[in-house]
Amino acid sequence: MDLLTRIKGPRDLDRLSLGELDRLAEEIRTFLVDAVSKTGGHLGPNLGVVELTIALHRVFESPRDKVLWDTGHQAYVHKLLTGRQDFSRLKSKGGLSGYPSRAESDHDVIENSHASGVLGWADGMAKANEVLKKDDHVVAVIGDGALTGGMAWEALNNIAAAKDRPLVIVVNDNERSYAPTIGGLANHLATLRTTDGYERFLARGKDLLERTPVVGRPLYDTLHGAKKGLKDFIAPQGMFEDLGLKYVGPIDGHDIEALESALQRAKRFGGPVIVHCLTEKGRGYTPALEDEADRFHAVGKIHPDTGLPISTSGLDWTSVFGEEMVKLGEEREDIVAITAAMLQPVGLGKFEAAFPDRIYDVGIAEQHGAVSAAGLATGGLHPVFAVYATFLNRAFDQVLMDVALHKCGVTFVLDRAGITGTDGASHNGMWDMSILQCVPGLRIAAPRDADQVRAQLREAVAVDDAPTVVRFSKGAVGPAVKAVGRVGGMDVLREPKTDARPDVLLVSVGALAPMCLEIADLLDAQGISSTVVDPRWVKPVDEALAPLAERHRVVVTVEDNSRAGGVGSAVAQALRDAGVDVPLRDFGIPPVFLDHASRGEVMAEIGLTAPDIARQVTGLVAKLDGRFESRAAEPARD
Amino acid sequence: MDLLTRIKGPRDLDRLSLGELDRLAEEIRTFLVDAVSKTGGHLGPNLGVVELTIALHRVFESPRDKVLWDTGHQAYVHKLLTGRQDFSRLKSKGGLSGYPSRAESDHDVIENSHASGVLGWADGMAKANEVLKKDDHVVAVIGDGALTGGMAWEALNNIAAAKDRPLVIVVNDNERSYAPTIGGLANHLATLRTTDGYERFLARGKDLLERTPVVGRPLYDTLHGAKKGLKDFIAPQGMFEDLGLKYVGPIDGHDIEALESALQRAKRFGGPVIVHCLTEKGRGYTPALEDEADRFHAVGKIHPDTGLPISTSGLDWTSVFGEEMVKLGEEREDIVAITAAMLQPVGLGKFEAAFPDRIYDVGIAEQHGAVSAAGLATGGLHPVFAVYATFLNRAFDQVLMDVALHKCGVTFVLDRAGITGTDGASHNGMWDMSILQCVPGLRIAAPRDADQVRAQLREAVAVDDAPTVVRFSKGAVGPAVKAVGRVGGMDVLREPKTDARPDVLLVSVGALAPMCLEIADLLDAQGISSTVVDPRWVKPVDEALAPLAERHRVVVTVEDNSRAGGVGSAVAQALRDAGVDVPLRDFGIPPVFLDHASRGEVMAEIGLTAPDIARQVTGLVAKLDGRFESRAAEPARD
Repeated sequence: MDLLTRIKGPRDLDRLSLGELDRLAEEIRTFLVDAVSKTGGHLGPNLGVVELTIALHRVFESPRDKVLWDTGHQAYVHKLLTGRQDFSRLKSKGGLSGYPSRAESDHDVIENSHASGVLGWADGMAKANEVLKKDDHVVAVIGDGALTGGMAWEALNNIAAAKDRPLVIVVNDNERSYAPTIGGLANHLATLRTTDGYERFLARGKDLLERTPVVGRPLYDTLHGAKKGLKDFIAPQGMFEDLGLKYVGPIDGHDIEALESALQRAKRFGGPVIVHCLTEKGRGYTPALEDEADRFHAVGKIHPDTGLPISTSGLDWTSVFGEEMVKLGEEREDIVAITAAMLQPVGLGKFEAAFPDRIYDVGIAEQHGAVSAAGLATGGLHPVFAVYATFLNRAFDQVLMDVALHKCGVTFVLDRAGITGTDGASHNGMWDMSILQCVPGLRIAAPRDADQVRAQLREAVAVDDAPTVVRFSKGAVGPAVKAVGRVGGMDVLREPKTDARPDVLLVSVGALAPMCLEIADLLDAQGISSTVVDPRWVKPVDEALAPLAERHRVVVTVEDNSRAGGVGSAVAQALRDAGVDVPLRDFGIPPVFLDHASRGEVMAEIGLTAPDIARQVTGLVAKLDGRFESRAAEPARD
Repeated sequence: MDLLTRIKGPRDLDRLSLGELDRLAEEIRTFLVDAVSKTGGHLGPNLGVVELTIALHRVFESPRDKVLWDTGHQAYVHKLLTGRQDFSRLKSKGGLSGYPSRAESDHDVIENSHASGVLGWADGMAKANEVLKKDDHVVAVIGDGALTGGMAWEALNNIAAAKDRPLVIVVNDNERSYAPTIGGLANHLATLRTTDGYERFLARGKDLLERTPVVGRPLYDTLHGAKKGLKDFIAPQGMFEDLGLKYVGPIDGHDIEALESALQRAKRFGGPVIVHCLTEKGRGYTPALEDEADRFHAVGKIHPDTGLPISTSGLDWTSVFGEEMVKLGEEREDIVAITAAMLQPVGLGKFEAAFPDRIYDVGIAEQHGAVSAAGLATGGLHPVFAVYATFLNRAFDQVLMDVALHKCGVTFVLDRAGITGTDGASHNGMWDMSILQCVPGLRIAAPRDADQVRAQLREAVAVDDAPTVVRFSKGAVGPAVKAVGRVGGMDVLREPKTDARPDVLLVSVGALAPMCLEIADLLDAQGISSTVVDPRWVKPVDEALAPLAERHRVVVTVEDNSRAGGVGSAVAQALRDAGVDVPLRDFGIPPVFLDHASRGEVMAEIGLTAPDIARQVTGLVAKLDGRFESRAAEPARD
């Protein structure tokens, strides 16, 4: 590590020879495998961009020039070269973020980890340079997978319209986004690979080709021009040039000299230009290269030699869903599944294996996932679109205008809902229950345990005239929480230990049921009686809730979602509409972006814990008691 | 009209000769100009697709085959051919919808009028046909402008991935979406026009070409291959074929025989295929053809001969904004404007004329409008993105993750907010104040009159570390509503006529100020005193609101937005957080999709009128009085 430790900033790269740069690349790989094995994090993507990042920082002068990373999980090497080499607390509270972070470094710009946005950022920054007459460079690095996102297309189309506004787009093409990249674009990129540059790449002894099949179109055909004819060999830039974009490539993304030469050309070009780099995800790390599925895209703590996980967790929410989907698929032939480039992470791997003709991986394209679901439903099927809660934000308009307006029976399964923690602000799934409240007809289930995931998924797919949503947390699912009764469609989880009018109605949302039961215990210890209910379906608000609330002195809602417009707000509105003016307090996530830390640390920081909530509720009840006590202290009327 | 009146359904077209079909086309044009002049509606787009619609219904068997229309305002001819020829109450309550409507006809599928979604629908329906082993055809009609939307790209990429799943995509290319189409794709389409088919089109005496410049690239150059070289002449299908899509065209979109022949070929192809049709927006109607700006895209009531509006309205919200933008542009060189293919409709025409280098038309690409704004702001400018309120739904993720997370000073101006009425469910701007509530740091202004539009726009662009939103209604702006006082940042519009604790605090949002003043008058007549405040900035809730609310017995909020998660909910939450448990009632739009009718009719139907609200508030106060009276009726304690 003698070279790496001497790199305090990008300009320290200038004085290294080509041989030293290659050595540096090897040091960085060793560092990454070692560091990320200990902390967990994105390994494969970063192993793939070592040389590319070195070349970028040799050719461009960050931070004056802006080097922008799409889905910033590929920015670890960038961090190492810009003064951040303490990875010991990566993604932990107080440690380095797993994404670019402006608080960490002037070299970072985009913190958002949702894919496909970098070209839009770059277009905006290039336009600003033009208006302000700056000659800084803007370089955007985007993966081939992220090019399938609609945002990328909108940006390319705009970038291409200005022929003399400089902007360098680096396509980091590893033939896979999370899993092998899907779709027409992937086929086109495969064709681009069939050129001299690629032949050289191949000739250098790299047999990447045979190990990475492109879905639906063997590379063999492509290489031999079987389907496309001569045109693509003489004009491989095809689509990009059709848009009017200058194309350079393909470049061997592990050849620093070739990369620098291409980037220098692009830098001098004076207009928008695409540099197409071929890289190998997981490069240099045998366990990653041998993993066909996703080449160690993101890992928990692993053993650095074998790549095997060090700890194994119990049953998680995702696999409970995934297994129930297989059963549903067996029972109902009309059930189909959709994923947006996240087949394994959302638990649909087993469904795909069982029903390969009834699953659609739409690529990084949440909008298409939702709108095509409307088409599938209208065509007579029941689609289940499983997606990370935070990524559904991309498809809000389609959920509203295509699915809900047309009363389509589509089920959205929102994984990683609530606070996810270490991936930072843009991975928390804390928006869904707010933005979906205004979607007419849409119903939201928030299952509290594994049994409820299974049961509510079944209830959801039984609805054929409206969208349904099933949202659950990330990670291990807790023990079953048994109902002790039922009111309307709501499960009563705990009855008050009093026959008198109980003090508090606790409305628990999803995975927070155990916390609510703990709150009830803490309140009990203060002599405050409470009922705990799990509404199960949190939208619409159960009609039995208002009458139940009226029998209590205070209503308290607890949810793992933004307080703004969340379930608490909806419950409060339902009570107002029913004329039930019982005081209500709603607990949830405050309206801020949350820094990376563990889920528990984040919840402690925002006061979403049983002791915090119990303390506040105790205060409120005491205040009400005070009011009543002062009345009670008044002389008796008779 | 002897031919048109005999067409009761698409199959009635089968027996007509080619000559009769041409006559039918002329009858339809005459009908459309006459009918739409009287009612207002989308004229230009429908005049352009007369022959295309006839050919589609001759070749495909709707409703068994599905003919899907993107942005359904081009479906008037489709309505005429599928049994709907009473246009006398077009877009009025009880009359035909201005868009496809499943309630009207089995021939209609997609009601959503947001652009670019049709290919996703078609992909889903084609997949359903495959799974269910149906051999029905799916045909999607999309304009060239709508192809710039990211959804279209996501869909094309997915459609291209399945080589043997039949699907016909008709690109209706009139070289303009609302205004001339912008961007790289437009240039590419221009190139496609430079082929034999297009030459024939040209040779038939149509001089469309010279009248429709493509932004940034004169068609002359394109025609002569000056920039693209020989390749495009021999392989014009370029980009589409690069994606793996079969391409047919370009076809003269006004030659029924040529259209039928191309559509028949596409129908037989057995895989995804693009049929590229060249049409002329506004065809056959001289005033439309002479209107360079948008060829009578949508019109109010007009004189059929001259095309001039029959009634002129007074000052409207849009032009107040547009004029203030010009002043701001003069004062601040860092202010730039963004529109998504809606330059004139959002009032940026004058800004463009004054500052042509500081305006960006991104095409139908709201996501790109928002994310590129983040880039512009980070680059040192202050972008103002003016967009219809309902279309901002497309960019929710970008507002949240790109603009807000990065604390960018970007101003979103939401035109046509609230109930817009006659355009039906998907044009109402009733979602913005709900979905934006959970965006950290974002501030929302709801100006009540023209003066406030100007003042609050200035306040908005002065914020450089957070997104701001200024939202206003469609149409004529009402008279100025003067403030009689100020509490915190809120304008007091009316003081109660009592020195005692007043009954009601009315919180008025935006354009509903006159209604709130009327409510106050009606309450006065019932002996109920009230204060009316306009918070001006409705997010965050003004800190002075809770103390003010506490001095009243009831709080009432009135807004032109979905009740679910709207301003009323936010105010209620702010009061809870301040421990102010005064009863609150929130009035707004119920959580349903609203059928087309005039704004006034819709508001009456949902009870968002002064008498309705006054009646409900009177009832609530009476109930509270009853409670207090029964106490007062109890024996005095001393």
